[in-house]
Amino acid sequence: MVVILSGIPGAGKTTVMQKALEKKPLKFVTYGTVMFDLAREKMGVEDRDAMRTLPVERQRQLQEMTADRVAEMGDVVVDTHCTIKTPAGYLPGFPYDILKRLRPRLVILVEASPQEIAARRSKDQDVRQRDPDTVEEMEEHQMMNRMAAMTYATLVGATVKIIHNREGRLEEAADQIVQALG
Amino acid sequence: MVVILSGIPGAGKTTVMQKALEKKPLKFVTYGTVMFDLAREKMGVEDRDAMRTLPVERQRQLQEMTADRVAEMGDVVVDTHCTIKTPAGYLPGFPYDILKRLRPRLVILVEASPQEIAARRSKDQDVRQRDPDTVEEMEEHQMMNRMAAMTYATLVGATVKIIHNREGRLEEAADQIVQALG
Amino acid sequence: MVVILSGIPGAGKTTVMQKALEKKPLKFVTYGTVMFDLAREKMGVEDRDAMRTLPVERQRQLQEMTADRVAEMGDVVVDTHCTIKTPAGYLPGFPYDILKRLRPRLVILVEASPQEIAARRSKDQDVRQRDPDTVEEMEEHQMMNRMAAMTYATLVGATVKIIHNREGRLEEAADQIVQALG
Repeated sequence: MVVILSGIPGAGKTTVMQKALEKKPLKFVTYGTVMFDLAREKMGVEDRDAMRTLPVERQRQLQEMTADRVAEMGDVVVDTHCTIKTPAGYLPGFPYDILKRLRPRLVILVEASPQEIAARRSKDQDVRQRDPDTVEEMEEHQMMNRMAAMTYATLVGATVKIIHNREGRLEEAADQIVQALG
Repeated sequence: MVVILSGIPGAGKTTVMQKALEKKPLKFVTYGTVMFDLAREKMGVEDRDAMRTLPVERQRQLQEMTADRVAEMGDVVVDTHCTIKTPAGYLPGFPYDILKRLRPRLVILVEASPQEIAARRSKDQDVRQRDPDTVEEMEEHQMMNRMAAMTYATLVGATVKIIHNREGRLEEAADQIVQALG
Repeated sequence: MVVILSGIPGAGKTTVMQKALEKKPLKFVTYGTVMFDLAREKMGVEDRDAMRTLPVERQRQLQEMTADRVAEMGDVVVDTHCTIKTPAGYLPGFPYDILKRLRPRLVILVEASPQEIAARRSKDQDVRQRDPDTVEEMEEHQMMNRMAAMTYATLVGATVKIIHNREGRLEEAADQIVQALG
């Protein structure tokens, strides 16, 4: 069973999932890492930037290979993006033809209040932004993620679990994930 | 023409629909009842709890048979769930492969304010909850239902009619359903 | 590359797009006009009202022909509806079988505040309503458009760009479209 784990940067998805995995151990991989490993192995790509400059057709093959590899992993939680915010708009992480290969049974969306997200982002060098998202932009992204997740769920018969990651209530959020994992 | 009627518990979907059917008589069935009848008839299941413990493959067959049977009913309104709230998250009532068999032309979502829903739930033994949903949880469920409904509509070319069931305005809500039924 | 441009009446989609096209010239057509031209050419239809009274099967053929013709236009922006508000509810402008023919790469949603939309509608004879939409109705329609757009994006691998068309900030909105067009 493949589980998709998503949440906008700063929502705390990895922290919550790690706490949940202490209670219920499961294989846990990052989609981007699986993809980069495949790009290196099959396409001779040497770094992540080179991966992004592959021709469209090669990128597409890479997407398909990554979905296939994850689908073969058995019970696995995949840290990934439900939608990616690009200059061209919200890009679904899993368009239907890729989703069909991955066949997730559960999509976990870790959400937090824009205030907590902003606080986490300002402290974390990796997600700090030169031009920080406004409260409205964070709410919009979380809403678009829900929409994409519900579409995924309908297309392949999965469930969508929304986890509210509230400040100081990490255990509770982790317990809800454990419950969703069944 | 198959019409899906949905709404979270306490939104008042059955009351509104019964009032609408006084004005425009139509066949009206409950999806769960059609399913249970089939389970009894074809699988020797004796009660609803036994239905839930069928092996996954049998449950899947039952879903398909139910969708097929409703699709053969001609003009019919089906009382059902747009999404079901489970411990694993929101489960779409009609994943794509089932939806394709049912081919609804119209999805009616009966919504109400969380305050009115809470009031109705507290009075109704059937939907009373040991741990009542918060206002946010009811709003979230109604929003996820809209998302699922819009996905269904796009997949099979249906329309989504949102009916606001406001306290003391039952006639108005029923009239909007009659209008949507065309 | 086909780009869908949508927004509820009064959101200002055409104004914003025309400003964007001054900066980045592209073919720009109205879906309804392409459809009417085809109806006249292939089906002998003489006016737009006659188009709406075609038998369902002919309407369906017309939808397919229109999507095919636009898809053959190369780089083109199509002014159209993401969902259409009908008495039977929100109708997706592009059900899946039509969407597959059109294959948009980008869905642009031009949104505005209900207050600004109401102000524009009251001044514009074409979109003025006898029974004006409430603030809630406008918000609901914009939200349903987002849901449909995200479903489209997932089905065919497009992106969804939300453009906030704020009073007095037309240039900014146009620049965001130019950026999304790449």
